[in-house]
Amino acid sequence: MMNQEHIDFFISIVGKENVYSDKAHKIAYCYDATKERFEPDAVVFPRDEQDVSKVLKYCNEHKIVIVPRGAGSGFTGGALPSNGGIILSLERHMNKLLEIDMENMVGVVQPGLVNMQFQKAVEEVGLFYPPDPASEEYSTLGGNVSENAGGMRAAKYGITKDYVVALRAVLPNGDIIVAGKKTIKDVAGYNTAGILIASEGTLAVITQMTLKLIPKPKFKKTYMGIFPDVNKAMNAVFKSLAAGANPVAMEFLDALVIKALKEKFPQVELPQDAGGILVGDVDGSSLADVNAQLETLKESFSKNGSIGFIIAKDEEESKKLWFARRNASPATAIYGTKKLNEDISVPRSKLPEALDGIYAIGKKYGFNVPCFGHAGDGNIHVNVMVKDKNNPKEMEDGHKAIKEIFQFVVDLEGTLSGEHGIGLSKAPFMNIAFTQAEINLFKNIKKAFDPNNILNPHKMGL
Amino acid sequence: MMNQEHIDFFISIVGKENVYSDKAHKIAYCYDATKERFEPDAVVFPRDEQDVSKVLKYCNEHKIVIVPRGAGSGFTGGALPSNGGIILSLERHMNKLLEIDMENMVGVVQPGLVNMQFQKAVEEVGLFYPPDPASEEYSTLGGNVSENAGGMRAAKYGITKDYVVALRAVLPNGDIIVAGKKTIKDVAGYNTAGILIASEGTLAVITQMTLKLIPKPKFKKTYMGIFPDVNKAMNAVFKSLAAGANPVAMEFLDALVIKALKEKFPQVELPQDAGGILVGDVDGSSLADVNAQLETLKESFSKNGSIGFIIAKDEEESKKLWFARRNASPATAIYGTKKLNEDISVPRSKLPEALDGIYAIGKKYGFNVPCFGHAGDGNIHVNVMVKDKNNPKEMEDGHKAIKEIFQFVVDLEGTLSGEHGIGLSKAPFMNIAFTQAEINLFKNIKKAFDPNNILNPHKMGL
Repeated sequence: MMNQEHIDFFISIVGKENVYSDKAHKIAYCYDATKERFEPDAVVFPRDEQDVSKVLKYCNEHKIVIVPRGAGSGFTGGALPSNGGIILSLERHMNKLLEIDMENMVGVVQPGLVNMQFQKAVEEVGLFYPPDPASEEYSTLGGNVSENAGGMRAAKYGITKDYVVALRAVLPNGDIIVAGKKTIKDVAGYNTAGILIASEGTLAVITQMTLKLIPKPKFKKTYMGIFPDVNKAMNAVFKSLAAGANPVAMEFLDALVIKALKEKFPQVELPQDAGGILVGDVDGSSLADVNAQLETLKESFSKNGSIGFIIAKDEEESKKLWFARRNASPATAIYGTKKLNEDISVPRSKLPEALDGIYAIGKKYGFNVPCFGHAGDGNIHVNVMVKDKNNPKEMEDGHKAIKEIFQFVVDLEGTLSGEHGIGLSKAPFMNIAFTQAEINLFKNIKKAFDPNNILNPHKMGL
Repeated sequence: MMNQEHIDFFISIVGKENVYSDKAHKIAYCYDATKERFEPDAVVFPRDEQDVSKVLKYCNEHKIVIVPRGAGSGFTGGALPSNGGIILSLERHMNKLLEIDMENMVGVVQPGLVNMQFQKAVEEVGLFYPPDPASEEYSTLGGNVSENAGGMRAAKYGITKDYVVALRAVLPNGDIIVAGKKTIKDVAGYNTAGILIASEGTLAVITQMTLKLIPKPKFKKTYMGIFPDVNKAMNAVFKSLAAGANPVAMEFLDALVIKALKEKFPQVELPQDAGGILVGDVDGSSLADVNAQLETLKESFSKNGSIGFIIAKDEEESKKLWFARRNASPATAIYGTKKLNEDISVPRSKLPEALDGIYAIGKKYGFNVPCFGHAGDGNIHVNVMVKDKNNPKEMEDGHKAIKEIFQFVVDLEGTLSGEHGIGLSKAPFMNIAFTQAEINLFKNIKKAFDPNNILNPHKMGL
């Protein structure tokens, strides 16, 4: 339990202005993007890695729980202090862009730096950082790495883990470790950085990240493929990619989402007969290259039953095409007062079967389940729409449907989460996705880093 | 210690024809590509994952050491039974290509499959597996993953770890685990696959691998840039890459290697005044794209002091340009009877400084140190040439020089190994590259997987 002595110690390390245990701060740091709320016992803002090290060492010795936090924009409760303890907030001081190393094409950043700020800074010097989670305007890079964030560009460019070159981190005992170098190849020692990525703040506190950058693609165009139904669209996804198309993004909207968009946003311009839509960008080093790729997509879509293919002529038309996808999530609100949304992921070839099965489960319980998301990488945002959130039976059925969807997806060789992580929200479903042997291994790994279980305990079902 | 009872147990599991403890087999499995020799107590050839599981469970209970082995082509002793025990050889039975999944663009393979066989099979259906270590003709994919093998195409396409989508593995206690799925995104649970890659057979025995494939590039051309000295060539490397060039490979030869090639292979066609050479391939989806890239390279090389730029007109000319690089290693033999070769890696921008420093250390001890390798990714093959290997003083000086080179490279933010791993050979240098805190963490990770220390013990300095 937290007492004044502990608070005084934290003050002695980071200064009075960086430790809070008043009600206002407890409330300000009790939330994330879930609806769950848990108040911490205190909020501490470390100024640098040394502060982090001293705070962790003390907490480890006194068995005080620490929950590292970036922007608190996570969807699964990863940054919630569900067991009390202190919030270690990296956003106030440890939010700097330390270096853009043009020669080695890497950026060196602190964990609290906001994704979009980094993207803008590197693009100004002609470089490119592809991972762009929907939260890019406010989520921090430390959070992105801790959750292995995805985004719209994963189909072509991969996800956060593909851009982590090296990390600095503080272990629960206060030890500072370096994992990786600015080198492309490094096979000395265990791949500690590999295991820290997506570990949801349960193994160490990341204090610095070296992220890979690539040259900014010179040309980009937006396309939209129209299909009579989502099944045909889903077939076109993996068939066009296997045929050699390499779009930056291939996002999809199903019939329910399209209907909702037309109702909620009458200004949206979508073909009358669209029952499934694929939309995305194509980029390249020359206009000829971009056009050739669009041709491949168009042909491949056509072979797989598309009834229309639109290419944006300019930035304004591109925005219009993207409008539907960007507003898919708010549009679904027409179907209910409570959205149970999950971000399952399947091998791309299983997308048609996955959607059929998800709709069938929804039907069984009487729910509309509009789906949209990152078809190009097999990641579906599933939305079980509860009409009346104050109806306990309906809410219970909603959660049953979600559980059934998880089981179905895992049986299809899919995963519980493509982007959002496990945190608290999906912890009850870990035994659907993993055997006891695998969970035991996770627990052993956790213990190897954090023997006293002070770092974000009980997250990920551990 | 191994006794007949243990041997009988192994026979009861895998069959008499798959267990050997005779002298001939002990000798046949006592070596790798180092000069070290250690005889195992027995050699066991599991037929499938169940065999692996049963053998590991038994060995764990009886504290019998197991050394997993692919082709035994490693350069650092990773597959040597330096503490006795059994060799678990995956090459005889567990060497199958299980599936090429065109729709999801992955290959599913067993660990004993030879890299080149896999490359050929996927290229036949229009796909491409980029990691191509120099040992590709005989090294196994299981070994490649366990060492995180690099190769000639890393500058553009990355290394083995960038192609591991999912693994199946057996833990020392016999538990079978699945790490990852055929999905592009998967953030459920710890990234166990990430930590198994490059773990040199010390954490688990990999029994199946799902490897990412990409569309085979349609066009390829070979280039050679000629420089008056290696320093100018090294400057051109990171400057041309930062300028947006994206060659598949950018290999280098220094003045000593060029001299040796001319002496050892008089048929080699190299410009008279070449003091440093960069050679590699450029590929792309169109000829126009390939030519544009070559133009960028040529311009950028020229700006950085090149005195010639050759583009191969056809396959035959391409082979001629590659001849020098492919024969760099044997050519260096003119400088001595014993080669102490290491594969250090530095951030690309440090290549000029790294080579200057390496030559200076060689000079201090009176050695020629010809260098060549993968400049495009910062990976240098350093060869300290000992003139008379029977001269103990000279050999001792050689090892001193190597140690000094390691320290120098680490000070330059480089690493002990870009491709070969640590194994036995580089274990004594771990404390140059890692702090005690980092080594302690490695030991804790090892214990989390292998509490009885039966899997490839004492490798990687653990």
